[in-house]
Amino acid sequence: MTQTRVVQVAGPGQQLELVEREIRQPGRGEVLVRVQACGVCHSDAFTVEGGMPIEYPRVPGHEIAGTIQAVGEGVEPWQVGQRVGVGWFGGNCGHCDPCRRGDLISCVNGQVPGIAYDGGYADHVVVPAGALASIPDDLAAVDAAPLLCAGVTTFNALRESGARAGDLVAILGVGGLGHLGVQFARKMGFETVAIARGTDKKEQALQLGAHHYLDSTAVDVAEELQKLGGAVTILATVTAPDAMSSVVGGLRPRGRMVVVGASADPMQIPPFALIPGSTGVLGHASGTSKDSEDTLRFSALQDVRPMVESYPLEQAAEGYDRMMSGGARFRVVLTME
Amino acid sequence: MTQTRVVQVAGPGQQLELVEREIRQPGRGEVLVRVQACGVCHSDAFTVEGGMPIEYPRVPGHEIAGTIQAVGEGVEPWQVGQRVGVGWFGGNCGHCDPCRRGDLISCVNGQVPGIAYDGGYADHVVVPAGALASIPDDLAAVDAAPLLCAGVTTFNALRESGARAGDLVAILGVGGLGHLGVQFARKMGFETVAIARGTDKKEQALQLGAHHYLDSTAVDVAEELQKLGGAVTILATVTAPDAMSSVVGGLRPRGRMVVVGASADPMQIPPFALIPGSTGVLGHASGTSKDSEDTLRFSALQDVRPMVESYPLEQAAEGYDRMMSGGARFRVVLTME
Amino acid sequence: MTQTRVVQVAGPGQQLELVEREIRQPGRGEVLVRVQACGVCHSDAFTVEGGMPIEYPRVPGHEIAGTIQAVGEGVEPWQVGQRVGVGWFGGNCGHCDPCRRGDLISCVNGQVPGIAYDGGYADHVVVPAGALASIPDDLAAVDAAPLLCAGVTTFNALRESGARAGDLVAILGVGGLGHLGVQFARKMGFETVAIARGTDKKEQALQLGAHHYLDSTAVDVAEELQKLGGAVTILATVTAPDAMSSVVGGLRPRGRMVVVGASADPMQIPPFALIPGSTGVLGHASGTSKDSEDTLRFSALQDVRPMVESYPLEQAAEGYDRMMSGGARFRVVLTME
Amino acid sequence: MTQTRVVQVAGPGQQLELVEREIRQPGRGEVLVRVQACGVCHSDAFTVEGGMPIEYPRVPGHEIAGTIQAVGEGVEPWQVGQRVGVGWFGGNCGHCDPCRRGDLISCVNGQVPGIAYDGGYADHVVVPAGALASIPDDLAAVDAAPLLCAGVTTFNALRESGARAGDLVAILGVGGLGHLGVQFARKMGFETVAIARGTDKKEQALQLGAHHYLDSTAVDVAEELQKLGGAVTILATVTAPDAMSSVVGGLRPRGRMVVVGASADPMQIPPFALIPGSTGVLGHASGTSKDSEDTLRFSALQDVRPMVESYPLEQAAEGYDRMMSGGARFRVVLTME
Repeated sequence: MTQTRVVQVAGPGQQLELVEREIRQPGRGEVLVRVQACGVCHSDAFTVEGGMPIEYPRVPGHEIAGTIQAVGEGVEPWQVGQRVGVGWFGGNCGHCDPCRRGDLISCVNGQVPGIAYDGGYADHVVVPAGALASIPDDLAAVDAAPLLCAGVTTFNALRESGARAGDLVAILGVGGLGHLGVQFARKMGFETVAIARGTDKKEQALQLGAHHYLDSTAVDVAEELQKLGGAVTILATVTAPDAMSSVVGGLRPRGRMVVVGASADPMQIPPFALIPGSTGVLGHASGTSKDSEDTLRFSALQDVRPMVESYPLEQAAEGYDRMMSGGARFRVVLTME
Repeated sequence: MTQTRVVQVAGPGQQLELVEREIRQPGRGEVLVRVQACGVCHSDAFTVEGGMPIEYPRVPGHEIAGTIQAVGEGVEPWQVGQRVGVGWFGGNCGHCDPCRRGDLISCVNGQVPGIAYDGGYADHVVVPAGALASIPDDLAAVDAAPLLCAGVTTFNALRESGARAGDLVAILGVGGLGHLGVQFARKMGFETVAIARGTDKKEQALQLGAHHYLDSTAVDVAEELQKLGGAVTILATVTAPDAMSSVVGGLRPRGRMVVVGASADPMQIPPFALIPGSTGVLGHASGTSKDSEDTLRFSALQDVRPMVESYPLEQAAEGYDRMMSGGARFRVVLTME
Repeated sequence: MTQTRVVQVAGPGQQLELVEREIRQPGRGEVLVRVQACGVCHSDAFTVEGGMPIEYPRVPGHEIAGTIQAVGEGVEPWQVGQRVGVGWFGGNCGHCDPCRRGDLISCVNGQVPGIAYDGGYADHVVVPAGALASIPDDLAAVDAAPLLCAGVTTFNALRESGARAGDLVAILGVGGLGHLGVQFARKMGFETVAIARGTDKKEQALQLGAHHYLDSTAVDVAEELQKLGGAVTILATVTAPDAMSSVVGGLRPRGRMVVVGASADPMQIPPFALIPGSTGVLGHASGTSKDSEDTLRFSALQDVRPMVESYPLEQAAEGYDRMMSGGARFRVVLTME
Repeated sequence: MTQTRVVQVAGPGQQLELVEREIRQPGRGEVLVRVQACGVCHSDAFTVEGGMPIEYPRVPGHEIAGTIQAVGEGVEPWQVGQRVGVGWFGGNCGHCDPCRRGDLISCVNGQVPGIAYDGGYADHVVVPAGALASIPDDLAAVDAAPLLCAGVTTFNALRESGARAGDLVAILGVGGLGHLGVQFARKMGFETVAIARGTDKKEQALQLGAHHYLDSTAVDVAEELQKLGGAVTILATVTAPDAMSSVVGGLRPRGRMVVVGASADPMQIPPFALIPGSTGVLGHASGTSKDSEDTLRFSALQDVRPMVESYPLEQAAEGYDRMMSGGARFRVVLTME
């Protein structure tokens, strides 16, 4: 077999289209992966809608789960047949300042699959070996996929947040990221608060492990968090800066709001809101391939799973539209074969 | 002697007036201090201008340096004759949540001299023993006073910032707080950047120890910081939220802007500015009496001194006006005797 | 009622004896607690066997659970009828260096119930208000008691260890402390390894939540830990320094062995064992009353319970002997009424 | 020119001998460095005396300062003519667990110049590009060399120790490492204590910046440290485990002894010495090439310099013997040309 199917975008704003291509063999330091599942993430819109400096045609997809089919020269210690995943972190340069400091996710030349090179809306993908995360045997590819971006982002943000077991941790937003954040928070031993608009998601949030649910359309979230003792961490998974700004007052002294929901619009935060309790607002950038590996292993061990709606690769366009509609509960995943 | 002089405010917006009063003897857990110098801080405006729930008449002043004249019942281990200082931290309750966690500066019942009780614009003041910081022998009262609020705030913010020796640290604003921040940063081994408007303060900033000076009216500060490698910490001592927002882009990955300049107006910070480099914005609340003690000792050992303009107590109103004018270089201090 | 029963020791090495006494009313800052359960801890031997500067007769016991019967002057905000616990941390001075830094457990004048003053082998006990931890409604007194020393020590050591969710954490020793450590580690989201001598405790350890069990008489523990990836934290609950020294090699780079099992005999640790991986050995001192409160709340929320053997107060001597025999599974608790 | 001089060891326990060799051209990812100075470190004995798995003949030397003469394929962004240094960290594999976590110095396949490949007792050396640190213009090669192992080890240990500016920091041993440790500690803003045997080094230690000097043959060091408030960090640069064990009692609560003096003999540390104050003992492994770069930059900016005795390359054997004698004050450096 030398041909493979990919779903590509011909240019910014163009349709997703399924085409056949010749399989590219992995070069030095690269690996060829047979894709089994690929998550559809809101950031795929960077490729589909355009707005970033991307060379087209381009295949989107950075939540890739599959098996190694071939390895290039100089690749250690990965081997053909291993189950692997690739997420937002698609490789680092190794020689910039952050890389030399060991802060690999902050690499200034970092590559994202589906943006810097062709991603996982495909039967095959070629990636740098440094981008690979090992997938545990007892984790299905369709479950692993969303954990490689939505999962590692929330898992990593929570474990790096400084919150300690037993602390009050709030997840702002119960969606693609938040429904994983709630599970991770509970399984990390936090007293977990889920926050969302309305009551639709209340029951689900409690089933996912939340000890408390706050409907942000009905109560003053900051006030309610203070009644619970004040949050040590608020993980903001929504993309609405106003919603973020409005909950900062719910932090306990020394608490931190960790922002993972990307938006170019500003939060509005007065110094007076941060100074008396020495609170703060931190950005958090996903995680490396090793962080992904930790996420997958934690999920397998502690029984965290994404809730997904799956589509076969040939229905990638429908899957993408479903994701963009905001109606999916909670992640869309493309499956191959 | 049973009478003492105080400079009090009769009510919000009233003049500072010098009056005679009977000296109050210290009660259980309290100490009577003979004041030798008291700094005039911008936060004294809370008392003079009003706007907080204060019982009038009230004596302002929370940068108090003097000697212990009498101790109340149950006070350990302070003794008559010791040189002591009192800053913004004027005592904590001991039984609220932050106190029980050892986070004394975050006490929800914390008392500030000059606001919760009469402060240091006076020949004598009575304070809780927990508010006292020991003053080293070789530090003059007039130098110690501003270190008890402007000093501890910047010293403590810097040493808690996470920056390590050799890291690039920027001080935004060269004024009452900033001129101390620059000295502390240099003496802590940071590569120190002073940032201010115009070139007036350039020479002074370099003499105080800055390795670099940036005129924020002439250059893009964020860009210049990036050319220097990116700041690990930016200590924002100004009170202009816009100035704060505009420099966040100068942080290195994982860097933090630490805000000590109080303002009720919002900073405008897009999540996109914080996520890629996992940077953040933190508030910082002054420090405890022990933190003040550490500040004084560091200043004595490493030769950090405030630049002050001093006024006798009876000219407190002139001193206050001078401070409010923004023209003082850099702190105003009242002296007694 | 003005009389109460206590179990006291007349002098070092004397028998535990049940006597009647007049109830002491709480003084300033003190609280009278009606005891419902009191754990029997190995450290009670300090009182029974002697060897510390203790005034006899003395009532042992520092794992006290009960309700407030009366409060002394100046006690805030505790009220009669509240369910409270007292552990090893029996009050701090508030004015020593560690207290002023907020490190309350390191108070150089710290008081331990049953050593500095009469403890909980009694129907009533008088303690400083600062020593109290609130007990959640859904936690029985008999379960709360051991959590106030064995529990807080292991819970607090683990949450302060620096290990993050998903990390490999080993509990050395499955006994009074270790059987709680295993539960806490699992519920904090760690990949949990239980280590004990022989296979007797294997099944129990796995039921308590351990993912792995190592029999230290059959395998090289350090080597086995390395096969699992290396431990980020080893919590050493045993009191055998040799056993501690022998597992240090099982740490991952940057890993820490946290020692809570008190012993005066030395661990033998070559610098070569610590330098290449920048590993380390840390002591850990129990926790404050707030730490105990956090432990109790975590246990209630996440369903952690001690396994206890209980004795009525009048059989305190039998309970103490049982604890000293090492055969109890896993904590002995005295119950009143 | 195709020939170069090297000083090699033919086998374990053999003499250092100067020979001529052909210059090896740098392969993929490698760089050819024209050496200007190379420090002589006690760890060079691993090569000269033997005891590690080394392929002979081998050229010792891992404190290398020079300029880039040629770069191999795929090397970014280093260029011919740049001034560079190489230390103990001679390259990492990039794919082991610690590397993937960004903990580059803990690489399990880490290479040390002079052990894994030929080192700097030579006119030319070929090293992986990842091993390079940039040398500031105003730092002489002869000064830079010892900073690349003795320097980075002490600088990095201190900045990672958790001690904050103003804290009491003790340097145990005033020798090749310690005389740099004292300077770094002072320039980082620590209250600095130098500890050595006898009074010979007292004056020098104070001139290097120590605030206090303790003669360990005359006083109980732990007791004296406690009189000064207790050390937050003790940096143990000696290689005598007994000396290390004996000072642990000088730590303040939460303090850490950081061990960089390698020895295979054990420290003797009772749990009782660590538990009450939650103190600890940590190993520390040198630093990466970026850490070296930070060390060099800090030294240039804050005016830290090693005290050296220099020998021309052809007298390498004399230099090595001088170093081994323990009499050098304080580092031996070979110079080329």
